Amino acid sequence: MCNHRLNPRNLLFATLLIGCFSLLPYALQAQTPAPNATQAADEAALKKIYATALTDGRCYQWLEHLCLRIGHRLSGSAGADKAVVWGKSMLDSLKLDSVWLQPVMVPRWVRGAREQLWINGSRKAGGISMPALALGGSVGTTEDGISGKIVEVKSWAALDSLGLAGQIHGKVVFYNRPMNPTYIRTFDAYRDAVDQRSSGASRAAKHGAVGVLVRSMSLKIDGFPHTGGLRYDSTYKLIPAVAISIADAERLSAMLREESNLVAAMILGCHTLSDTLSYNVIGEIRGREKPKEIIAVGGHLDSWDVGHGAHDDGAGCVQSMDVLRYLRKIGYRPRKTIRCVLFMNEENGLRGGRKYAAEAQRKGEFHRCAIESDAGGFTPRGFTFEAEESVFPKMFEKVKALQPLLEPYGLTIGKGGSGADIGPLKSQKGLLCGYVPDPQRYFDVHHAASDVFSAINQRELELGAAAMTALIYLIDKHVD
Amino acid sequence: MCNHRLNPRNLLFATLLIGCFSLLPYALQAQTPAPNATQAADEAALKKIYATALTDGRCYQWLEHLCLRIGHRLSGSAGADKAVVWGKSMLDSLKLDSVWLQPVMVPRWVRGAREQLWINGSRKAGGISMPALALGGSVGTTEDGISGKIVEVKSWAALDSLGLAGQIHGKVVFYNRPMNPTYIRTFDAYRDAVDQRSSGASRAAKHGAVGVLVRSMSLKIDGFPHTGGLRYDSTYKLIPAVAISIADAERLSAMLREESNLVAAMILGCHTLSDTLSYNVIGEIRGREKPKEIIAVGGHLDSWDVGHGAHDDGAGCVQSMDVLRYLRKIGYRPRKTIRCVLFMNEENGLRGGRKYAAEAQRKGEFHRCAIESDAGGFTPRGFTFEAEESVFPKMFEKVKALQPLLEPYGLTIGKGGSGADIGPLKSQKGLLCGYVPDPQRYFDVHHAASDVFSAINQRELELGAAAMTALIYLIDKHVD
Repeated sequence: MCNHRLNPRNLLFATLLIGCFSLLPYALQAQTPAPNATQAADEAALKKIYATALTDGRCYQWLEHLCLRIGHRLSGSAGADKAVVWGKSMLDSLKLDSVWLQPVMVPRWVRGAREQLWINGSRKAGGISMPALALGGSVGTTEDGISGKIVEVKSWAALDSLGLAGQIHGKVVFYNRPMNPTYIRTFDAYRDAVDQRSSGASRAAKHGAVGVLVRSMSLKIDGFPHTGGLRYDSTYKLIPAVAISIADAERLSAMLREESNLVAAMILGCHTLSDTLSYNVIGEIRGREKPKEIIAVGGHLDSWDVGHGAHDDGAGCVQSMDVLRYLRKIGYRPRKTIRCVLFMNEENGLRGGRKYAAEAQRKGEFHRCAIESDAGGFTPRGFTFEAEESVFPKMFEKVKALQPLLEPYGLTIGKGGSGADIGPLKSQKGLLCGYVPDPQRYFDVHHAASDVFSAINQRELELGAAAMTALIYLIDKHVD
Repeated sequence: MCNHRLNPRNLLFATLLIGCFSLLPYALQAQTPAPNATQAADEAALKKIYATALTDGRCYQWLEHLCLRIGHRLSGSAGADKAVVWGKSMLDSLKLDSVWLQPVMVPRWVRGAREQLWINGSRKAGGISMPALALGGSVGTTEDGISGKIVEVKSWAALDSLGLAGQIHGKVVFYNRPMNPTYIRTFDAYRDAVDQRSSGASRAAKHGAVGVLVRSMSLKIDGFPHTGGLRYDSTYKLIPAVAISIADAERLSAMLREESNLVAAMILGCHTLSDTLSYNVIGEIRGREKPKEIIAVGGHLDSWDVGHGAHDDGAGCVQSMDVLRYLRKIGYRPRKTIRCVLFMNEENGLRGGRKYAAEAQRKGEFHRCAIESDAGGFTPRGFTFEAEESVFPKMFEKVKALQPLLEPYGLTIGKGGSGADIGPLKSQKGLLCGYVPDPQRYFDVHHAASDVFSAINQRELELGAAAMTALIYLIDKHVD
């Protein structure tokens, strides 16, 4: 890129000087209009926010602790309890106007000690042991386990047709419809495939199946099974269900093409205990003009019970905590109350989100905006907004107007979903916002043992926290 | 995001059903205008290109071979020779209209057997051994090596002032000015810091220094030294120069604060051999309307002599090869000639790029556009364009008009640099284009042993190849 400033004789010089450098703008179209005073102040504030994040961020260090010292933290587990104590103590250390725990009863599903899947007999009988993860909420088996001939299906139509022909009865159904790789947005591919995981067990039980294997919800061919919640329809028998990795799903499918009479046997120790007490962890900076008007930012503190829950959703938690810290660091005194919420129980109940909304309603708090970061700690792409229909067009116009200030940071503002935890706030008629990081790698690690701290890039995480802080700053100042 | 369609009693159902799913648009603002026939055809073609890339891409598999079977490939090395043979054979397998090797003499610098750095004495004398990589082009030392008291500097002003005071003479200069983390675009931070690597040796030699240590050009704190080219000013003595990792640069700086009299000793076996024959590898699909008008797409086949050269620039090569393959796969017959060029010697000479431009000139070929992918295999963000001043405004307007078709894929079109290899084509007054992937992780691995195949994400790589194919398709059809 510098080459054209030099004559050809200096070309070698230029190359060696710049290596493979080229001037690649991040915001390719930062066409800034002539600045006025407010705009200049906003630009300066955003610059300070980003500089704080990138030189004095704490989210990465926090996430390291959450991942490596506490680890995974399914609702009701010892990890979740530790995460609550730790989260409160970190928020306390920020000298906010208030920090509190909001009690909430949560479900408690535990994986148990035994979790084994064999293809064609037990280990003793020369079967192939295949790594499997019970789906969250699955019933377990007796110590003898269950077994049945494997029937592979790739569509609901195939399931139902086999079921009507009596060919599902007594069998283990193997759901092997892949996530569609041609979707550019991996979340769209997830949406299209996840019904196998969420309702596959009951839909197979309806036809008399005794168990279910599900191809993991991932686009990456590797050996990690990905868990996630299932939902039983109580009309039918509750049968056990496990996820197998993409590599094993491909392998099993190939084996079935060779030999259609394969049998799966599984022993699962998972079971559900009675509900237990847990907490949402909340901290806030009180608004100087409109303390009852709230901008909330959050992620969920619980995770599935494998890996570290680094991207899902340790990242969203530590980013949300750092948002308040950056606002303090740059000396900004918000007009509205800015609140960080670490929600409990997003993964298997949403009890935290519902409790939070109910309490807000009870106290007469109005959420001007709630932002959730629950799509990973990857490089920021922007934000999507939704709201109750009657208020959306006008409110969206206001936030859309903020985009030019965010473009230099590679961010756009669009219409779209927000987050599961903040969904229950919709009836308040404020804005709901989803933070959108790049989605390509998310499902590689989602709900799997590979969702670990080392999969996090520090700059990408910090840029996400900065992006949310920038948005909140602008909404606080300009959106009423 | 689905929550608002359900009443609160179904909220739990919805949560379990969708997990942490939310509808996050990739192109947040794909506001498509009313389609006409051409636009609909273009949209359909782009969809086919992306589907081909994401279900039938070969670039990832090619890169695996290039990285794991061939490995790094500095100009003149056995790896580079193998890469040329392999590249040609892969292009041959695509049944293009022609594939050829373009001979070019390249420099040949070799690292040699010994490469050692100690702080405070040799290993025998109880010194600390510190991993170091000689900078590309550095002279070596005798078998006894060189040694000198370490002088840390963080600016040219500090160097010159110490030099004038006679305090550089006989010393080893330690350049420790970090890349600025507050730049959002890491390439900007690289540009600001890389002068230490490229000209630090001669600027220290001017003041009588005997050797140079350079903090690696990276933003990530880890133990990998990053090499890269230096340039000697022949006015001064040629002194040896090595890079040390960010972690070691921080450590050494801390040690110097404790004890200012530290000595560095180094033994380097690196040396420069005579120029040798190598090749650019070229394949093309001939244009059916304007065969003499060319759209070239390329990366550089050479790499530094550590790691696999996966992101720099194996990625750019295999993406460029797959561009031609996708065009074939979708059955597109281009109007202009579409050419893939795997350039030799970008890293330490740019001989391939210069030879390519000279040959094009000689043959009277006009490059309507040349695109380079040399910024890593990360998720695509867009393209930047440059051109000779007199033609740029009009040409840029034409490519900018293509942006709406690219937005659904998360791509924007902006002004900016292109690539080192295609720079020499500028005088042809065609467009020069840089492919812009997300830049956050690039310098983590750039020119280091950590630039390996496992740092590549398959979807991100394939999306990059698809993005370039889409752009080329549109330029071929619409930009004359």
